Amino acid sequence: MTLSNDKPIVALTLGDPAGIGPELIARLLTRPATTEQGNVVLVGDPWLWEEGQRVAGVHVACDPVAGFEAVRGRRDTTRAALLALDTVRPEQVRCGQAEAAGGASVLAVLDRCLDAARNGWIDAICFAPLNKLAMKLGGLQHEDELHHFADYFGVTGYFCEFNTLGPLWTARVSSHVPLKDAASYLSRERIVAAARLIHASLLANGVASPRVAVAAFNPHGGEGGTCGREEIDVIAPAVRELNETGIPAQGPFPADTLFIRARDGEFDAVVTMYHDQGQIAIKLLGFSKGVTVQGGLPVAITTPAHGTAYDIAGLGKADVNAMANAFAIACRMGRARRAGKRAP
Amino acid sequence: MTLSNDKPIVALTLGDPAGIGPELIARLLTRPATTEQGNVVLVGDPWLWEEGQRVAGVHVACDPVAGFEAVRGRRDTTRAALLALDTVRPEQVRCGQAEAAGGASVLAVLDRCLDAARNGWIDAICFAPLNKLAMKLGGLQHEDELHHFADYFGVTGYFCEFNTLGPLWTARVSSHVPLKDAASYLSRERIVAAARLIHASLLANGVASPRVAVAAFNPHGGEGGTCGREEIDVIAPAVRELNETGIPAQGPFPADTLFIRARDGEFDAVVTMYHDQGQIAIKLLGFSKGVTVQGGLPVAITTPAHGTAYDIAGLGKADVNAMANAFAIACRMGRARRAGKRAP
Repeated sequence: MTLSNDKPIVALTLGDPAGIGPELIARLLTRPATTEQGNVVLVGDPWLWEEGQRVAGVHVACDPVAGFEAVRGRRDTTRAALLALDTVRPEQVRCGQAEAAGGASVLAVLDRCLDAARNGWIDAICFAPLNKLAMKLGGLQHEDELHHFADYFGVTGYFCEFNTLGPLWTARVSSHVPLKDAASYLSRERIVAAARLIHASLLANGVASPRVAVAAFNPHGGEGGTCGREEIDVIAPAVRELNETGIPAQGPFPADTLFIRARDGEFDAVVTMYHDQGQIAIKLLGFSKGVTVQGGLPVAITTPAHGTAYDIAGLGKADVNAMANAFAIACRMGRARRAGKRAP
Repeated sequence: MTLSNDKPIVALTLGDPAGIGPELIARLLTRPATTEQGNVVLVGDPWLWEEGQRVAGVHVACDPVAGFEAVRGRRDTTRAALLALDTVRPEQVRCGQAEAAGGASVLAVLDRCLDAARNGWIDAICFAPLNKLAMKLGGLQHEDELHHFADYFGVTGYFCEFNTLGPLWTARVSSHVPLKDAASYLSRERIVAAARLIHASLLANGVASPRVAVAAFNPHGGEGGTCGREEIDVIAPAVRELNETGIPAQGPFPADTLFIRARDGEFDAVVTMYHDQGQIAIKLLGFSKGVTVQGGLPVAITTPAHGTAYDIAGLGKADVNAMANAFAIACRMGRARRAGKRAP
């Protein structure tokens, strides 16, 4: 039996104050399963948390804590701890608007969580949807939050975003680059690194023997080199290297049938070669349930794949399922991280 | 009320003799809806037609005809006409094998249908699955059947394959080319031609006001030019030209969310920029129901999107739905072609 103190400590944030984040967190914390999975520390502005509960039409009792250091010693973790910050005022927030004040608030809250992770006070971070434009207006210096996190931790190895949908995870070897240049981003090293990272992350998420498929780049997998050579020159050698070093990856497989196989349970992960290759598939398979995992960081960080949904913010009708899935993954990966620390 | 003689005359072929084609045609012709939609002339080897019925476990009475010329004068079109050819012998066919004799048979049957179309004896062709490798072994000189058809008719305008799935049709601006070269195949002229062709084909298929969406090429539609310029330099100008010339096309739209919108009924057609962009989506949405329409030819030609399914050929368990959908589209487009001929 697991003692409550063995639960991973997961920081939970309210996300962009003008979006659906606060109401999602309110709904999430009404579910008993939430605090059963993790020792939750909710981090944010108390007025915004009240507002989220009001919109969701729920009341959730939390235990105030003065700092992250206090969370580990909690005896009763059936309720969330609330770490109150003061990052934004109600009059600065217009529901459904991407604005600097909201973006700065998100950044301030996340940075406090990153500090806590660096100090070993928390095991994972799960954040409600944020808005990149608002964050850039509010002071984000990087192209996205993942690069901000990686820079914060001084990550020098491979890192990338995983898009997950239920049991299926995807990684990208190239991402926000012009498609005509995507081929130049493919290298054996990057493919091997992406496959290793998603394999390790699935292990951390509790998948015993992750089955990793590597997508081809060209139509029909290049048709034996007559329709592009990246499969022969780069991708197949990467798969061989993975196999030789203990990762039973398979591929390259033509992309247009690979996702049918993955959907039907043949693989746990797909390493894709470019942005839309995976995104077309995973969004069709069920965007609203998806989770984004920030891979390659020293702490597990997850968030729903959907955005702030400004069009329905404040209406109390946002679907909590992706948020709950993001939280569950954060808990599993946080638990694995704790177990790893305890190992001899 | 439509007189039976107003039904479009549709040539139906058995496809590759080693595949599931003959049994599919047997099942198709047991459906009363089939001969209600079209004046069917089944073209092929009598022994193979018998074999298809045997595998399917059905018996379908047909009326022998001596040539295509005799089909138009038929009074009773509730049964299919059978035009017997002698293109392959039973001992040359091994079930489930792609072989030259089978490929040559497919080519011979199709060429007779093309002759009939050129002579105005038929309004459409619907062929059961063929195998490109077998056809190349059997004498096909082109990269695929579409190029063979286009060469036969001396087509000089734009032609391309449409992949359709229920009410949703897709066209490709580039197809079997290395993905790193796909950008070089994009031009305003090709995008305009593909959109015009699919718009006209949907009109012929009975869609009153086809809603055509044009996909973007780059991630997130190029993010305003910061992630690729094809949208700004090529695709948006093509959409403007379409609009200025009476085609209410929309786009360019980011590919990863466009197919969700199309699936949900917002568009009748998507013009895609490269092979996997459309194929990943349409295969995930339901490969087995899809139909391929050969667009840009002087006669409507359709076939199921699935192949010969050699692994289940002869077992009598092939699904007839895509074949039936292919036949229905051939009938609708054949009827429109007849109506167009009759128009002043």
